Amino acid sequence: MCLRVTNLYKNSCYSIITKKIYTSSILSKVNPNWGSTKPHRRVKLYYKLNAMTDPVVEKALAPLRTSVKEQGDFVRQLKATGAPVLDIQKAVAELKLKKKLLDDKELELMPATAYFDRAKMENLLKRRFFYHQSFSIYGGISGQYDFGPMGCALETNLLNLWRKFFILEEQMFEVRCSILTPESVLKTSGHVERFADLMVKDSKTGECFRLDHLIKSHLEKVIFDKKTSEEKRKECENIIIKLDGFNKKELEEIIIKYDIKSPITGNILTEPIEFNLMFATQIGPAGNIKGYLRPETAQGIFVNFQGLLEFNQGKLPFAAAQIGSSFRNEISPRSGLIRVREFVMAEIEHFCDPSDKSHAKFSSVTDLELTLYSACNQMDGKTTERITIGEAVKSGMVANETLGYFMARIYKFLKLIGIDDKRLRFRQHMSNEMAHYACDCWDAECLTSFGWIECVGCADRSAYDLTQHAKVTGVRLVVEKRLPEPTVVDITEIIPIKSIIGKEFKQKANIVCQELKNLSPSEVLTLQKQINEEGKYLINVDKEKFTITKDMIQIKSGPETRYVEEIIPNVIEPSFGIGRIMYALFEHSFQIREGEETRTYFSLSPIVAPLKCVVLPLSSKEEFMPLVKQISSDLLKLAVSHKIDDSAGSIGKRYTRSDEIAVPFGITIDFDSLKEPHTVTLRERDSTKQLRIPVSEIASTVQELTDGLLTWQQATEKYPVFEQQESTKLPEF
Amino acid sequence: MCLRVTNLYKNSCYSIITKKIYTSSILSKVNPNWGSTKPHRRVKLYYKLNAMTDPVVEKALAPLRTSVKEQGDFVRQLKATGAPVLDIQKAVAELKLKKKLLDDKELELMPATAYFDRAKMENLLKRRFFYHQSFSIYGGISGQYDFGPMGCALETNLLNLWRKFFILEEQMFEVRCSILTPESVLKTSGHVERFADLMVKDSKTGECFRLDHLIKSHLEKVIFDKKTSEEKRKECENIIIKLDGFNKKELEEIIIKYDIKSPITGNILTEPIEFNLMFATQIGPAGNIKGYLRPETAQGIFVNFQGLLEFNQGKLPFAAAQIGSSFRNEISPRSGLIRVREFVMAEIEHFCDPSDKSHAKFSSVTDLELTLYSACNQMDGKTTERITIGEAVKSGMVANETLGYFMARIYKFLKLIGIDDKRLRFRQHMSNEMAHYACDCWDAECLTSFGWIECVGCADRSAYDLTQHAKVTGVRLVVEKRLPEPTVVDITEIIPIKSIIGKEFKQKANIVCQELKNLSPSEVLTLQKQINEEGKYLINVDKEKFTITKDMIQIKSGPETRYVEEIIPNVIEPSFGIGRIMYALFEHSFQIREGEETRTYFSLSPIVAPLKCVVLPLSSKEEFMPLVKQISSDLLKLAVSHKIDDSAGSIGKRYTRSDEIAVPFGITIDFDSLKEPHTVTLRERDSTKQLRIPVSEIASTVQELTDGLLTWQQATEKYPVFEQQESTKLPEF
Repeated sequence: MCLRVTNLYKNSCYSIITKKIYTSSILSKVNPNWGSTKPHRRVKLYYKLNAMTDPVVEKALAPLRTSVKEQGDFVRQLKATGAPVLDIQKAVAELKLKKKLLDDKELELMPATAYFDRAKMENLLKRRFFYHQSFSIYGGISGQYDFGPMGCALETNLLNLWRKFFILEEQMFEVRCSILTPESVLKTSGHVERFADLMVKDSKTGECFRLDHLIKSHLEKVIFDKKTSEEKRKECENIIIKLDGFNKKELEEIIIKYDIKSPITGNILTEPIEFNLMFATQIGPAGNIKGYLRPETAQGIFVNFQGLLEFNQGKLPFAAAQIGSSFRNEISPRSGLIRVREFVMAEIEHFCDPSDKSHAKFSSVTDLELTLYSACNQMDGKTTERITIGEAVKSGMVANETLGYFMARIYKFLKLIGIDDKRLRFRQHMSNEMAHYACDCWDAECLTSFGWIECVGCADRSAYDLTQHAKVTGVRLVVEKRLPEPTVVDITEIIPIKSIIGKEFKQKANIVCQELKNLSPSEVLTLQKQINEEGKYLINVDKEKFTITKDMIQIKSGPETRYVEEIIPNVIEPSFGIGRIMYALFEHSFQIREGEETRTYFSLSPIVAPLKCVVLPLSSKEEFMPLVKQISSDLLKLAVSHKIDDSAGSIGKRYTRSDEIAVPFGITIDFDSLKEPHTVTLRERDSTKQLRIPVSEIASTVQELTDGLLTWQQATEKYPVFEQQESTKLPEF
Repeated sequence: MCLRVTNLYKNSCYSIITKKIYTSSILSKVNPNWGSTKPHRRVKLYYKLNAMTDPVVEKALAPLRTSVKEQGDFVRQLKATGAPVLDIQKAVAELKLKKKLLDDKELELMPATAYFDRAKMENLLKRRFFYHQSFSIYGGISGQYDFGPMGCALETNLLNLWRKFFILEEQMFEVRCSILTPESVLKTSGHVERFADLMVKDSKTGECFRLDHLIKSHLEKVIFDKKTSEEKRKECENIIIKLDGFNKKELEEIIIKYDIKSPITGNILTEPIEFNLMFATQIGPAGNIKGYLRPETAQGIFVNFQGLLEFNQGKLPFAAAQIGSSFRNEISPRSGLIRVREFVMAEIEHFCDPSDKSHAKFSSVTDLELTLYSACNQMDGKTTERITIGEAVKSGMVANETLGYFMARIYKFLKLIGIDDKRLRFRQHMSNEMAHYACDCWDAECLTSFGWIECVGCADRSAYDLTQHAKVTGVRLVVEKRLPEPTVVDITEIIPIKSIIGKEFKQKANIVCQELKNLSPSEVLTLQKQINEEGKYLINVDKEKFTITKDMIQIKSGPETRYVEEIIPNVIEPSFGIGRIMYALFEHSFQIREGEETRTYFSLSPIVAPLKCVVLPLSSKEEFMPLVKQISSDLLKLAVSHKIDDSAGSIGKRYTRSDEIAVPFGITIDFDSLKEPHTVTLRERDSTKQLRIPVSEIASTVQELTDGLLTWQQATEKYPVFEQQESTKLPEF
């Protein structure tokens, strides 16, 4: 995952307009700890359907497209001629503004393809305890969520499927590393210095606000104020678009210019301060080992590189993976599961030879078509395009086969679990938003009512991390690669004489020796020269100077035959935000039964659904119990997760309850079941169609249906349909 | 898990004597970050085999047994007559001393049943990266471990099996709650106040030592010193035994009396200080929400009780479970995976009616025989006994059916994963070591070279946790239980008039109203009387006094019909320490091939083994590759985890390598495999026997073997044996 996830809202403008429509509802008895307290909040969604635009619309958009393209070309030209960074930044900001105008117009002209009622979905998620704000009986902590039985089971199923799909199929090495991380490691990775957001505080109450969020919401208020002049409105819009590019001083000037105060108390605000987003703690009782909760799982893999390489018998390529919790102390968490303080990630670090980023299995995915939104298209004012990953790699749009292969696998995984293809795209980072170490980066983004959100990042991190850790620790994090043929090289090597250096520099002796060994060939020459001429040589280590004299070293030189060369592997990193994927999945599978506003449910695929089936005796009469027990025991033998619902209430009501928690199949035991041969009905959640199936075959049928070995269509051809109208009465909750 | 795990070493004296035997070895090139750096450390293990003792031995032990029994009876008598706590504590300490004498004698007279070479096992664990000290390239952090590919896969398999065995089979609700926990929650649970160890610091360097460990190791030195008198030795032994019972002042006196200094620098030590074992941090940017990393997962379940109860439609009993990381900032972590700072737990909270702790499935386990070490036997100087769980519950030794049922399930689970029955016992907490809230508690202990270690706790926590959280938050954590028949009760109820109370007490109005509603019937009478007579009534809330006047309340009284009563559920808590179970499993499955000292391996059961099989082409010749690919793809379809080892090296060497990582089955593709019909050999790790099996059946055969649907014995009856001697040459590493 990147050092700092780019602002969630940055791209949301492209395809979403929030239009709140409040209506009354009977479902309002929900805990208001999180989510909307409004009974309804309908959000208009626009899916961009691959350039299949109306010619009339295209005509209207043409001048705007041209304007973006011209500015994009201007940016390219500036970069090509090596213009000053400031000029480029300004030109990029202008580019973004033009893109925004284009996008707005495009949305305006396009018909909405769907509405989404977020409040209604949140109501269901809360009511059936998929997840809930943590510690809510203590008032709750924002940005932290507890997963209830169904949320937890969904997460477990997703993770086990992920393990099978990536770790097992690709023969990766899964590791589980510590969450508590000493400061030294995170200094090396850059997190101690750079993993921060700007914030301001209420000068009296001390309340904190994330600076960019505060400015944005203030300016939005100004924009929506009827009294604001058109000119002022444009200015505000312009600032919002450029917000990400501003530095601390520029942001502070906006605070002053617009006289922004605390939105809660109206008090004046402090100067912006940098707030590191890691949770700090002390390891051990003495209080001298500063530590943090890891902000990503990746570093645990890098510091174990040696062990993993050895486990792979010294060979490249190989991939390691880790699933686990990471922590970010967000200044003001919001948007439910999307921006939280504690979250589960699944990360892969694929180590490969920097000179060969081909992938053995790439040929198996070349024809797969993806929706790509390249940096180039973003700069040219164009939209996304459908293109095969084979072509994308061939044309150089995607940097290499390995990156392309993982993008294809990410796509397949997301589709498998039920993410809607039409609401999924891969967006390439533009060069000014790419982390400093990455050479190419694509985000798998899902369209939700919060806009396009990054769910999976897929970056080529080059050799950055291993290089940094090696530099700081002095441990060689390299792979020995056999040379095509042995090479003879002339070397001059310094051999420190440890006994003398040790006596002289005491505790510092080791780092001095290390530094001597690390000298470059030209430095060695200088050292030789100075020692010969002046009898001494000064080296700098750890901000100290050490005087090296002739007796401290031996110089060995001559030809040496080399059979191997040392290379620092490059890393391709697919990084999954599990909570975000789950959230997108909830939105993409949320359904309302036609004509029955209150019958809401999730049409989750059986492969990830929390429970695979529910067993329903028609009533709680004793006579049904033996069959209930037998079927439950049969399901258990096949490890099919299920629930027995023998509560009071009509079958229709109980179906509704099980639909709500996304149970794909329902087995009903009715009076006919008591007759020989014993049969039961099997109901499919989405179609509500029912079949009549022998008890002896029911467990294996459900297993085959959930494992994807049998489709519902095939089942309907095998077993007779059972006709009985489902109660359409309003269910009671 | 208990508030504080009892001292790991407390019971180790019962059946272990550490006897170090150092021998040389070729395997010494291991990172010395953790574990022993000595090539060998053989530990003598004594298994107590259920009272099947030699009559001669018994005769020698008889007087010691009597002495323990007499003291045990004395303790009972003191308790029965309500003697002062101090007297009881002294008598218990004396009891422990007598038990120790008995145990020592018992061990002395018993032949050793096994030796265990811990250093040899640790060497294998490190060399094949089952786990390793975290951040070792940065010098490592003690008490933190990273799991490499094989350790991680073993853990994942264990946890998935646990899920199937407990959550699926018992239809529990799995939840996943936050790790970061606000202080208020942990104040309620008692952790902020009581979850602490005593420590002393080196007065100059600040180095910290856990007080009891420091005293113990100092006194052990004194005991082993030849110059120490017999009397002094006895005194030291006496102190070591009583150590757990001493308070801060008594421990400080020992430090002074024995003039204990820092074992590293010889500097004097500070006074003992209480060190809270939780890792503290700040949640949010303002720094005003103090939080901790959770020290157990249980509290997350308790604070979600309401949501879970509602999910179960308001009915008892039900169980919730959670798997996740917990954290304890140990003062001086040691013993490898056994005492660590970050560990994975799997906890179950079974909520039930306090008046009915029967269990619907208890009848299915009544005949299961367990090794129980009751508190009574511990007091009577007796040893463990084999007894069915049915009898143990019937006799009252185990408090109730639900507790007994879970003990049986814990036993079955541990046996299923491969814990050695002979090295497993359930030890009951004696009343003076039981947490203050528990009414009965049994630990599943595994015998390892560190002694008996607690791997699973199984406690009846009564209504403690829910009561505490309800008291602090004012949220009713109760279950409504239908009364056998409606009851009419006379009630007097106070109805606060919120408009007036609100005006008067502002922010405090809510808690005042809450307090008024919570008044007991007798308090209500007093209030009525005082309001009538004096016109006012004083109540205390939050250390403040509030004056209630007549206009603030309405008093309603009269008969009311009750259909339900409110009960606070009791909780039975099985709590698994996954790392400790894994460690015990490593020791119980560690093997050395007969006559081949360097061929060490783990005989892990296929059900938990990290990889189920290895695919070995006889050489890396191209002609073998199509079969390798086909078999790998067949295995993948059945989700059988495997590894292809086409590295150079004889088949024998590669078998040795795969044995080391506990792979139970090896498929070898040899020249005969190339002939039609294609066949391969299948080798079983423990017996090293091989069978010849058609390629078309090999994947399903391995799957059946690992899923327990086919035994190796059955396979040998089905397929021809393949005879070929395995290379017994010393393998190279």
